[in-house]
Amino acid sequence: MALRIDFARMMAPRVTGGATEAEFRTLRTRFATVHEAVTADAAAGRYGFLELESQAAEHARVLAFTGPLRGRYADVVVLGIGGSALGAIALRTALGDAFAGANLHVADNVDPAPIAALLKRLDLARTLFCVISKSGTTVETLAQYALVRAAIDRDHRQPMRHLAFVTDPAVGPLREIAVRDRIPVFDVPPNVGGRFSVLTPVGTLPAAFAGFDTSAFLAGAREMRERCAVGELKANPAGVFAMLQWRAHTQAGRGIHVMMSYADALRDVAPWFVQLWAESLGKINAEGQHTGPTPVAARGTTDQHSQLQLYMEGPADKTVAFLVEREHRADLKLSDAALAPVVEHLRSRTLGELLDAEQRATADALASAGRPSLAIELDVCDAHHVGALMMLLMKATIYAGVLYGVNPLDQPGVELGKRLAREALVTPKRTAADSRWIV
Amino acid sequence: MALRIDFARMMAPRVTGGATEAEFRTLRTRFATVHEAVTADAAAGRYGFLELESQAAEHARVLAFTGPLRGRYADVVVLGIGGSALGAIALRTALGDAFAGANLHVADNVDPAPIAALLKRLDLARTLFCVISKSGTTVETLAQYALVRAAIDRDHRQPMRHLAFVTDPAVGPLREIAVRDRIPVFDVPPNVGGRFSVLTPVGTLPAAFAGFDTSAFLAGAREMRERCAVGELKANPAGVFAMLQWRAHTQAGRGIHVMMSYADALRDVAPWFVQLWAESLGKINAEGQHTGPTPVAARGTTDQHSQLQLYMEGPADKTVAFLVEREHRADLKLSDAALAPVVEHLRSRTLGELLDAEQRATADALASAGRPSLAIELDVCDAHHVGALMMLLMKATIYAGVLYGVNPLDQPGVELGKRLAREALVTPKRTAADSRWIV
Repeated sequence: MALRIDFARMMAPRVTGGATEAEFRTLRTRFATVHEAVTADAAAGRYGFLELESQAAEHARVLAFTGPLRGRYADVVVLGIGGSALGAIALRTALGDAFAGANLHVADNVDPAPIAALLKRLDLARTLFCVISKSGTTVETLAQYALVRAAIDRDHRQPMRHLAFVTDPAVGPLREIAVRDRIPVFDVPPNVGGRFSVLTPVGTLPAAFAGFDTSAFLAGAREMRERCAVGELKANPAGVFAMLQWRAHTQAGRGIHVMMSYADALRDVAPWFVQLWAESLGKINAEGQHTGPTPVAARGTTDQHSQLQLYMEGPADKTVAFLVEREHRADLKLSDAALAPVVEHLRSRTLGELLDAEQRATADALASAGRPSLAIELDVCDAHHVGALMMLLMKATIYAGVLYGVNPLDQPGVELGKRLAREALVTPKRTAADSRWIV
Repeated sequence: MALRIDFARMMAPRVTGGATEAEFRTLRTRFATVHEAVTADAAAGRYGFLELESQAAEHARVLAFTGPLRGRYADVVVLGIGGSALGAIALRTALGDAFAGANLHVADNVDPAPIAALLKRLDLARTLFCVISKSGTTVETLAQYALVRAAIDRDHRQPMRHLAFVTDPAVGPLREIAVRDRIPVFDVPPNVGGRFSVLTPVGTLPAAFAGFDTSAFLAGAREMRERCAVGELKANPAGVFAMLQWRAHTQAGRGIHVMMSYADALRDVAPWFVQLWAESLGKINAEGQHTGPTPVAARGTTDQHSQLQLYMEGPADKTVAFLVEREHRADLKLSDAALAPVVEHLRSRTLGELLDAEQRATADALASAGRPSLAIELDVCDAHHVGALMMLLMKATIYAGVLYGVNPLDQPGVELGKRLAREALVTPKRTAADSRWIV
């Protein structure tokens, strides 16, 4: 496993306002307690994403299902949203050009225009729809299912050959339909919530169809789980990530946590992390206070030309976590002839060297402006390392939940919106607009 | 023009902590002064993005160039980054399925893997590369150009048939190469910076190749410019946007400004706005303070399942600006048969109705939690309306610059990173890592 966190730029005196050595010692002591609490809860079965061994049989079912079907489907379409989509999107992007299976589409919204366009383009005969909803009641996903199912029925096709479900093993609308119509269905364990489900069939079923090595992915996650099974902060990457981000927020006012990928293969890990960090930690704590960091996804070098100005000179309210790939397997040498005589400093360099130089320069520029950052470095962006990275961030989220004093597994704040939307659908009427406040 | 801002949910008492009517009167008075200052600077030629008439000839050149070439290129590739890419990406997405020209790729990063994959896939004989850099010195873009140019030369192709440049009319590396090799070149006016350049050939050249109606786009921008030419706040949408966001930040501690699109066609307007708002306002003000809001891009309904929990129950430090499309030209009716008997409340509804209901429910849920929002409503996401929307946001940024006391046109904070990157490239060496702070 070649994945490490370089957090020197979270520390004082290198970065003004960073953690001192004395503070780090305090964090180590605190972490031992936090880790102990999490370990006890894990033993009690609270964190299903850690229970990879008991989920091995379901992964074997995924492989047994997808293997023989390779080549049968030209297109695989995920109907899912939030935790049922962001993991699959991240894995699809991580594949990069190593993509070697069906075209993987993720229809994670209900805007009719792109859905209509997609349905029009697909050859239904060669399409599989993976309908993914933990609860089986997600309204956006059921609406998409209704459209797809109507198209399948209209064509007199067999539903079981064009649909696969991923849902909770308990009763729910998707489970009922699966039983009725003998549609293949895969389980999300009851103790694995949507945003922690990328290691279950929620992530592995669509990823396997696209040619992603889900076995290596799970092995990487297992390996990182072991590394993060120790109460010594200096040996636990998830602990370091959680403790330093929390400390920067609560001790130094840095509550905006940017995740900035410097490898395009990892770019969609950032939105996946945004859900994980935002939805797990942004809530009312035990003292009744509104708490939680605001995660922001960014991308290097692109956002050096967009958000970096704000990170450098705006309010001192941010940390930046870089995602870095150390090896560039497909590096490109720049042509001196093409650049001469106008651009001297690119002479004899490669594109990968430019990317690396910019990442280090950005970290150093931020540090010199008193803006802390850390780098999560992967030697290479393969399935194994991506599994490790995602496990690291999930475990860090659990630690952070203890630190912030919130339950990282629930999302009580979204229920009101769901109820209001249901009411608005059943009795659609628009509130009379207040014309004084319209321009 | 059917574009309006509904800002009732930025106002008290509807939203706790919103602006009171008395405050709004104060904002009106203040805005009259702000508008006057901006109008004077505009008259002095400071804001080139407003000078659409003097840029009409260059737009005519774009149309004269792209028109006869329709169909000749299967692929058009933008080599550009930041302000030279985000506008084109937003316009390409706004086209949706109305896409009727060349495939438009935007290579806005220097990760070698995706660039290598793209170059491998393209048929050079049928590809045009639009190299876009205001200064002509953007290192990422010149590096990409070196790769592409080497490929063109290796194939003994004529550079002038596969390259077009967009750059400043003054001297710069791209201008020199264009003159030397007779490559078609289009001007970005000297008084239009990258993030304000979407109305120039930076945006219109690639968009025109993809089949985007750039004339309607510019007409929409002109129309909104006229609407925003008045000092009366209640009639000026750009003024309302700027004054209320600034007030929420500086008077109510809401410095995180979420832009949440509820129309997939507008989803890439949000990252374009993020650059505009972040890079223009995130800087050191006249009093030497670090200031500026932090813009965040989000997407409905997707982010209801990701970030909404944080927006509802996390710290009260955010506003949300919704982008809403009122007409759904390709709406899809849900099949009752497919849903029965499991999902009753979707009965007889369309996907568009679901999307609308969720947007309104989200706004109402936020309001009831004391979280302010506004909605920018477009009747339809066509080129005309997108032009109006982008003009509104650019003008609002200029007003906000005055309010925050910063120069919205510069970006002094990114120079250090550029210098450090250049040094790191010329003498590539890695700083000895501090192994105490690596895990």
